[in-house]
Amino acid sequence: MTRYEQLAQQIREQIQNRVWRAGDKLPSLRESGKRAGLSLMTVVQSYQLLESQGWIVARPQSGYYVAARSQALPQPIRGEKLLVSEQVDINAFIFDVLQACKDPEIVPFGSAFPDATLFMQPKLARALSSVARKFTPHSSLANLPPGNEALRRHIAQRYALNGMQVSPDEIVITAGAMESLSLSLQAVTQPGDTVAIESPAFYGALQALERLKLKAVAIATHPQHGIDLDSLQQAIEQYPIKACWLMTHFQNPQGSSMSEENKKRLVTMLREHQISLLEDDVYGELYFSAERPLPAKALDQGGQILHCSSFSKCLAPGFRVGWVAAGRYAPQIQRLQLMSTVSTSVPTQMAIADYLLHGGYDTHLRRLRRLLAQRQSAMHQAIAHHFPPTVKVSQPDGGYFLWLELEATQSSMELYQRALAEGISIAPGRMFTTGDRFNHCFRLNASFEWSDRLETAIKTLARLIRGLG
Amino acid sequence: MTRYEQLAQQIREQIQNRVWRAGDKLPSLRESGKRAGLSLMTVVQSYQLLESQGWIVARPQSGYYVAARSQALPQPIRGEKLLVSEQVDINAFIFDVLQACKDPEIVPFGSAFPDATLFMQPKLARALSSVARKFTPHSSLANLPPGNEALRRHIAQRYALNGMQVSPDEIVITAGAMESLSLSLQAVTQPGDTVAIESPAFYGALQALERLKLKAVAIATHPQHGIDLDSLQQAIEQYPIKACWLMTHFQNPQGSSMSEENKKRLVTMLREHQISLLEDDVYGELYFSAERPLPAKALDQGGQILHCSSFSKCLAPGFRVGWVAAGRYAPQIQRLQLMSTVSTSVPTQMAIADYLLHGGYDTHLRRLRRLLAQRQSAMHQAIAHHFPPTVKVSQPDGGYFLWLELEATQSSMELYQRALAEGISIAPGRMFTTGDRFNHCFRLNASFEWSDRLETAIKTLARLIRGLG
Repeated sequence: MTRYEQLAQQIREQIQNRVWRAGDKLPSLRESGKRAGLSLMTVVQSYQLLESQGWIVARPQSGYYVAARSQALPQPIRGEKLLVSEQVDINAFIFDVLQACKDPEIVPFGSAFPDATLFMQPKLARALSSVARKFTPHSSLANLPPGNEALRRHIAQRYALNGMQVSPDEIVITAGAMESLSLSLQAVTQPGDTVAIESPAFYGALQALERLKLKAVAIATHPQHGIDLDSLQQAIEQYPIKACWLMTHFQNPQGSSMSEENKKRLVTMLREHQISLLEDDVYGELYFSAERPLPAKALDQGGQILHCSSFSKCLAPGFRVGWVAAGRYAPQIQRLQLMSTVSTSVPTQMAIADYLLHGGYDTHLRRLRRLLAQRQSAMHQAIAHHFPPTVKVSQPDGGYFLWLELEATQSSMELYQRALAEGISIAPGRMFTTGDRFNHCFRLNASFEWSDRLETAIKTLARLIRGLG
Repeated sequence: MTRYEQLAQQIREQIQNRVWRAGDKLPSLRESGKRAGLSLMTVVQSYQLLESQGWIVARPQSGYYVAARSQALPQPIRGEKLLVSEQVDINAFIFDVLQACKDPEIVPFGSAFPDATLFMQPKLARALSSVARKFTPHSSLANLPPGNEALRRHIAQRYALNGMQVSPDEIVITAGAMESLSLSLQAVTQPGDTVAIESPAFYGALQALERLKLKAVAIATHPQHGIDLDSLQQAIEQYPIKACWLMTHFQNPQGSSMSEENKKRLVTMLREHQISLLEDDVYGELYFSAERPLPAKALDQGGQILHCSSFSKCLAPGFRVGWVAAGRYAPQIQRLQLMSTVSTSVPTQMAIADYLLHGGYDTHLRRLRRLLAQRQSAMHQAIAHHFPPTVKVSQPDGGYFLWLELEATQSSMELYQRALAEGISIAPGRMFTTGDRFNHCFRLNASFEWSDRLETAIKTLARLIRGLG
């Protein structure tokens, strides 16, 4: 970490620890430099980094101030710690929410997809064009499961740069992370088996379980710190859990991330009970802090951790190229893929391999992270400004979701209906659970460039929230 | 049908009915013309068509002769008409056979994929390049399930040209036919349900059933005429069959096709018992006769027929773009897709839509059919020349598979092992069944351009067959 990054991190921690609170004026650049023994230039860089991440704002002629983040974080919902659903319920309703987001007339706060304008890269288009010319008769066969070899090597190299030992041989290229998770689940379970999931959870996990006739045990999940390990331990003692499916970083929908310590405890706990871990890490690259958080997969010893990710949230939505680092399940996952989708689309595999070869991915990612941090901050500010103070909002360190909690008696389904009537979609809490514990919660997509249209939509939501019973 | 096509069809039927037999000299062009009241030019076109389809051969200075097709067709294997497998067995071995075909050193007679050189089309490459430029932020959303709208309209138009009423709204674009079949199976069954399949069957069907914990009833299937409807009727009376999965045309592995009459009887039988039909029609466009055989889907009345096909065998292997015309199951299939692979790869969907818009697909298909007929004929001739006369071989009217039957005591698994040791792959009968009824059968891929290398491989196989116990 460079000096300016160190200073930025110090200040950030101070803000998190309430040393500085929203609206406080920070020490001047000169003063900060003097106290820390750093050059003025270094301090300027630190402050600019913090500004780009939405932690502080510059006021002309005055200095830097702590940004008006809403400090009232949602609380984990306790009470019912465990819920075994004999059969997970599919909501046709989830499908309707997603369909609504396809309509360009609707403000897509309920969307699961990052703003597509973040990914309009001439370099990627060039890679696709170049693949069209390079296609040979052998290309189709060469890209069958486990998938494009160059691409698997690139992915293994990126693991290596994070200090992780993942062989290209245990990587299987899939049609996005959704296919890698679905195949992983099939590899480690049989119908009727029990799987531990987060509560609230990514609805794709609920639906995959339903489709494969698995039983779900929903584990309380903290909006900041991720899955509650005491609850998980208790569930393991109570139920014959075969696998655990969770997101270690910037969880969907809450944005929570597990600490290093918790990841260690999780991996140890699961290893002791021979439970496979499906680590859904699709948002892992979208961190706002200085370094990529290390996946639980880094702690894998027996090949029982299946690390699933993709390029859909970082580089090429719509290409449907993802992967799983599947440990000892890699051969089985190849076979399952061959009999469900045969292989991942060949031109898109080759285009991403070509793009990664020619460089520029890290530059793109840095820009993407900076923009997402800024956009999250803009949405936070609008929420802080317009929403009633009773609404609690999460403050994730990455990704592009905000999780909001209304008062316990207020219904986010009602808000969803009323907002849709005014051309705004949100993702209500009941999309993320089989029960009704999150009926007063909802998720917003914060990946869009801030605009008057969005500001107005937030104002409208604020008015609708005030009107809720 | 034009006059020359009519004449060609007449002669062809005469050959099939043994009016003319292999090696017979056909009437001269002049004589044929006189008898049929056709111009010499029309007769020349007929004879050229028959020649391109491998039915006849020209001998310089002499005239046209019936090609040396092997007349000994395999017989349907009776005996055990029904077999209920409580759990279908997956063969890791199938995976090995497919893997062997990836090695360019191996003669890929065992491959399931058509020769890739048949598909090297500059127009398709240009379509892919052009998509790279046309990609907009809205593309990803616009191509979510049910998939690219222009593509669905093109497909519906092609149905319409065959006189079929299929709305773009019941079409869902999928990652190849394998995904459309797998999603269709999930839409119409629950784990534990019973599904009628062909015997022998496409191994993908066996594997999909195993994966979804379904029970299989294997129905005797005739090498020429397809599924035995009496056996199916009997199975329906005996077992609680929920769905029937079969190939109406150029079935894999036998190459059989159902007659119009049989398709009608099938559809009526299934409708009476409220059984859904999964019609796998991936080879339907690869017909050698004058017209496309009409799918059973054309007879659908209650939306219970799910017609699954793709561009993988006809245009773009490796693109992984297929579809299902799903009748009333279309909404459910969209939801299932959204939770398993999210969507079909967007650039490949757009590229195929673009290609179809600019025309040339039918010209390509005509060339493809002509080449496949020629190549089938070349392989037939090599087999007739080298193999012992005890080996029976099928004579499909389309597709690119030949199905061969050794003597009952000879093992195609043994042949597979010995052939692989000499650098040749074949697809042994046990890949296509859960039992051992096809242990003396195997499938050959006839899609490759004939060459000395292939001729030598056939000679080697002939030697190995003679050496079998």
